[in-house]
Amino acid sequence: MSLFLTTISVDEAVKTARSLGTTVSQEEIALSSACGRILATDIKSDIDIPGFNRSSVDGYAVRSRDTTGASESLPSMFRLIGRVAMGGDGFGNLPSDSCLYVPTGGPVPEGADAVIMIEYTESIGEDILLKRPVAPGENVVLRGEDFKAGEEILRRGTPLSPREIAALAAVGRTAIPVTRKPRVGVISTGNELIPVSEIPVGSQVRDINSWMCGAVLESTGCIPEYFGITKDDRPTLRKILQNALSVCDAVIISGGSSKDDRDLTADLISESGEVLVHGISIAPGKPTIIGRSGQKPVIGLPGHPASAFVVLLVIARPLLQEMTGQGDREMVTKRLTLGENIPSARGREDYVRVRIREGRVYPEFGKSGLVNTLIRSDGLVRVPSGVEGLEEGEFVEVILW
Amino acid sequence: MSLFLTTISVDEAVKTARSLGTTVSQEEIALSSACGRILATDIKSDIDIPGFNRSSVDGYAVRSRDTTGASESLPSMFRLIGRVAMGGDGFGNLPSDSCLYVPTGGPVPEGADAVIMIEYTESIGEDILLKRPVAPGENVVLRGEDFKAGEEILRRGTPLSPREIAALAAVGRTAIPVTRKPRVGVISTGNELIPVSEIPVGSQVRDINSWMCGAVLESTGCIPEYFGITKDDRPTLRKILQNALSVCDAVIISGGSSKDDRDLTADLISESGEVLVHGISIAPGKPTIIGRSGQKPVIGLPGHPASAFVVLLVIARPLLQEMTGQGDREMVTKRLTLGENIPSARGREDYVRVRIREGRVYPEFGKSGLVNTLIRSDGLVRVPSGVEGLEEGEFVEVILW
Repeated sequence: MSLFLTTISVDEAVKTARSLGTTVSQEEIALSSACGRILATDIKSDIDIPGFNRSSVDGYAVRSRDTTGASESLPSMFRLIGRVAMGGDGFGNLPSDSCLYVPTGGPVPEGADAVIMIEYTESIGEDILLKRPVAPGENVVLRGEDFKAGEEILRRGTPLSPREIAALAAVGRTAIPVTRKPRVGVISTGNELIPVSEIPVGSQVRDINSWMCGAVLESTGCIPEYFGITKDDRPTLRKILQNALSVCDAVIISGGSSKDDRDLTADLISESGEVLVHGISIAPGKPTIIGRSGQKPVIGLPGHPASAFVVLLVIARPLLQEMTGQGDREMVTKRLTLGENIPSARGREDYVRVRIREGRVYPEFGKSGLVNTLIRSDGLVRVPSGVEGLEEGEFVEVILW
Repeated sequence: MSLFLTTISVDEAVKTARSLGTTVSQEEIALSSACGRILATDIKSDIDIPGFNRSSVDGYAVRSRDTTGASESLPSMFRLIGRVAMGGDGFGNLPSDSCLYVPTGGPVPEGADAVIMIEYTESIGEDILLKRPVAPGENVVLRGEDFKAGEEILRRGTPLSPREIAALAAVGRTAIPVTRKPRVGVISTGNELIPVSEIPVGSQVRDINSWMCGAVLESTGCIPEYFGITKDDRPTLRKILQNALSVCDAVIISGGSSKDDRDLTADLISESGEVLVHGISIAPGKPTIIGRSGQKPVIGLPGHPASAFVVLLVIARPLLQEMTGQGDREMVTKRLTLGENIPSARGREDYVRVRIREGRVYPEFGKSGLVNTLIRSDGLVRVPSGVEGLEEGEFVEVILW
């Protein structure tokens, strides 16, 4: 049974892939290990932050109304009643016409509503001369101005970068609820494949896809489980696929590259589930399979590494993002001018590897399956299926590697 | 001793920071663990890849000169002498006017110099009709066309993404020479600081910077070593700094936020080395220290998380990149139109947190040190020191988070 001739659009394929991605369970990990993980619950602030009115400069806390009229030529005099210690409890209520030295980050005492920067003052014994007035609230961060107690500060599904780690620390979270990393089985099929450690004889080829696929999985927040190389042999592949499905949340099978082998993968998926897509209007990557075995997603990649990589990026990545709980994340793109025409066939989406030179984009043409085009390029340009190519001088969005 | 008033430009500061970054030693790790690491040596291909002339389509290998004149109306007839098996050894020399079925990725036999796609042929018993001619080399990837034996394919200093992992697998590398991850000590100073797990009382503040800093270190390929919170107390900080320096390749100290505390950090660095920079014309982040203790870099960050983060990105990151051996990597930026004026003071480089809405860039103004501006923004816009601000409608490069 081959559905291969019924190719569907990239959008449809991505939608189908996404629909298979149910988020795996969650776990709690230490704040120090949370960077790069995906938040599994919404996070609220436990307290007002800051918990006190805080000075944002080194200076003197005052009642702003006492400073009216102060100027360079006629400074106002204030009595210095002390210095605030960092982390201390404040100083009670500030009397009129008095001031208190407060360092950056220190607490502004009750009664005071502004801090004048030390640069606009002069010290005369026990007294401080103010050379300009301050407005109410000037140089003061109010209690709760950063985050209010109970305020939602981060949403589930957020990837945790150093900035979110900072916010989690601010609201006192030391154990962070994150989605469990999905385990994804990686299988390479093909009679021509040999392990990377061996030297190819005749038309043998090293198994590149297992490791490339594993690296993509790691970069997307998954744990690759390697099931090695199998021959294009039904009972062997069936056994390995079942084994992989029994311990993994999803499976990615790459190759073989002949039409027959692709049918083998599709047949095996059908035995325990359903082939939803077999053939996508995408170049490279047409012979891609999207299916499920039970409720677990199974993706069949083309055998050529360069094609497999494009499919991992464009089709598998959205699925993995659903599984890791981060939902729909845009790819990072850069808008640049095309330096050379890119021809393309109407009716399929082309993903052309491109190089960026002096701010212009040039296609890296190369025969099908060359690995060197991957490492010599800077990204991909998508040529939509409705057009017959892109012209020099056009703006294009480069999907950066 | 305070050098604080002598601020230097951001460019100078980055140059100084970079100059302190000597690459740490290298180690060999498994291919499966190499994604995200930095290559420590140049890598050459051990063999020709492919190791044979490879078909890039499913079709029939032929001598191209035998196909001259073949057309839809007058097909040429070829004798099918067999089918190539994937991974097999080929078929000896192909006789004239004969053809051999070769699947995508299969070996093209000696004598043949082209493969005609199966779509342009018809099978009649033992014979195959060709309905068009093929050019020499058509649909054949020549031996060594991807990589030649001995060809340099990757350079030391390259960060290993899935694409480089693919290339390393192709050339048979299972043990990858990468730079050792630098260990960087993280110290937070400030009498006001308490551990994240505690609830602040009075003007106490949770230690955000240790964890934010650690997350930045991890994202940059370093290993953070946490030395906790210390009071702004000379003997205590001296002891912890010495301890950190004895086990780490570099140390980052954040806070305290008052001028006195900053002098304490600078004094302690001077005791065992040299303060090279104390004050940078950058906002936020002016009170930054760059120094060395012996030959080990020590960076003093401002205490406010939002300021510390900008300094980590703009000043510390280039240093860490040198230490990890990846040299000068550009930050990922996106060119977009400014939706609102950004005022700035001439003579200092401003890094303004911005939000991207419908393709336009809006500054996220917020008082100094607010953590919420970090998680509510999408990146930074740099306002160069020579200008007094940026105007609505201008193109700006957004440094994406």
